[in-house]
Amino acid sequence: MTRFALALEFDGSPFMGFQRQAHGLTVQQAIEDALQRITGEQVTLHAAGRTDAGVHALAMRAHCDIERAITPFRLMEAVNALVRPHPIAVLSCEEVADDWHARFSCVGRRYLYRIACRRAPLTLDARRAWRLSPPLDAEAMADAASVLVGRHDFTTFRSVHCQAQSPVKTLDSLEVTSTDGEIHIRAAARSFLHHQVRSMVGCLALVGRGKWSRSDLSLALEARDRSKLGFNAPPDGLYFVRAVYPGEIE
Amino acid sequence: MTRFALALEFDGSPFMGFQRQAHGLTVQQAIEDALQRITGEQVTLHAAGRTDAGVHALAMRAHCDIERAITPFRLMEAVNALVRPHPIAVLSCEEVADDWHARFSCVGRRYLYRIACRRAPLTLDARRAWRLSPPLDAEAMADAASVLVGRHDFTTFRSVHCQAQSPVKTLDSLEVTSTDGEIHIRAAARSFLHHQVRSMVGCLALVGRGKWSRSDLSLALEARDRSKLGFNAPPDGLYFVRAVYPGEIE
Repeated sequence: MTRFALALEFDGSPFMGFQRQAHGLTVQQAIEDALQRITGEQVTLHAAGRTDAGVHALAMRAHCDIERAITPFRLMEAVNALVRPHPIAVLSCEEVADDWHARFSCVGRRYLYRIACRRAPLTLDARRAWRLSPPLDAEAMADAASVLVGRHDFTTFRSVHCQAQSPVKTLDSLEVTSTDGEIHIRAAARSFLHHQVRSMVGCLALVGRGKWSRSDLSLALEARDRSKLGFNAPPDGLYFVRAVYPGEIE
Repeated sequence: MTRFALALEFDGSPFMGFQRQAHGLTVQQAIEDALQRITGEQVTLHAAGRTDAGVHALAMRAHCDIERAITPFRLMEAVNALVRPHPIAVLSCEEVADDWHARFSCVGRRYLYRIACRRAPLTLDARRAWRLSPPLDAEAMADAASVLVGRHDFTTFRSVHCQAQSPVKTLDSLEVTSTDGEIHIRAAARSFLHHQVRSMVGCLALVGRGKWSRSDLSLALEARDRSKLGFNAPPDGLYFVRAVYPGEIE
């Protein structure tokens, strides 16, 4: 048995999320189906994160165990060939130790959220960004974002379907930058609650629109009450950027 | 009668090109259909360039004449609402003088060609870039590109279907830059022959692959013979970036 670690890029728009479901195509299912055709084995894919329907990944990390002898390069090429026409690509593949786990060994997750500040509908970026009409005050958003950084009870920013044991998480950073008609929000933490990034982005958008102040955001956080959430941003603009593992350079 | 100038963005992948055709959906038809529903008039759209099937636009310029009284803002909003679900957006709309012509007043066209240098299939950038496996020598491509700049007979780089009266064109610039896993080729001229940008990019890719030298490209140009073309790049990576008009700041 060999354990392989994969880096996956995917366009999340046609999928019902990462995790295998009883109904609807998921990223996990599309890749597991390809792995079964390649190896003849029932292969299970474990990923660093379970992205929602419509959420994209630039480099999701995942692992699987395979009995049959195959090189990492052959495995990558075969998955890329067989997973078509689904918009999934294996960017890299390597053998790892049997105790390396894409989810449990992961010590950091990085997300990017893209807001397109324009009135016109999106064409080339349709389903790849959240379109919001200007004006949007990126400086106010950047200032308010600092309220959320640190160790907090993020119950307000947590989906009712969240399976995490505790709502307390440490948000390492939440950066808002403005560039060429877009606002980019980058979030870093060891782990996130379900819908946490989208919920934080939705509230920051209210700040950008001038509907919420920095202290409104602070009150929402302190309320520890999902009903105090301002807005949950759509999945379209969300990208899982990378997973961090001990010994890997960021 | 009022003449309106529009700036159009579109994802070219689902269209049979810009220009109206007897069979197959085109950008022109989708917009003209929307204009007819808005005005009740048979409106003809004139554009700065006739992009091929699969070619995108970040800001194609076009104009149309409308009898009915309507503000530029209302017209823009109505087209954006009615052109859905086609991936076309009107980015701006303004009244212009009756002798302003999107095609004949245009004194410069700018194109961008995106090459994604990677082995893995494209997912988020599928149909938005040309994927080529590395290595690709961007410096050699940049050096060779200078061979094509200036006034030349571009017969080698011209489609057999090209309707231009003369194959002699002046290429103002052809810049090759390398950035974050992509090679960008930017072409500027008053006007281009049919397939000229894609033909130039295809030959530059041969240079990048080490299959052609700078002098091979020079010989192909001097041959003035379509059969000496190395390769015609696919439409996926091509973007009409902007049209230049007298008095507008670039």
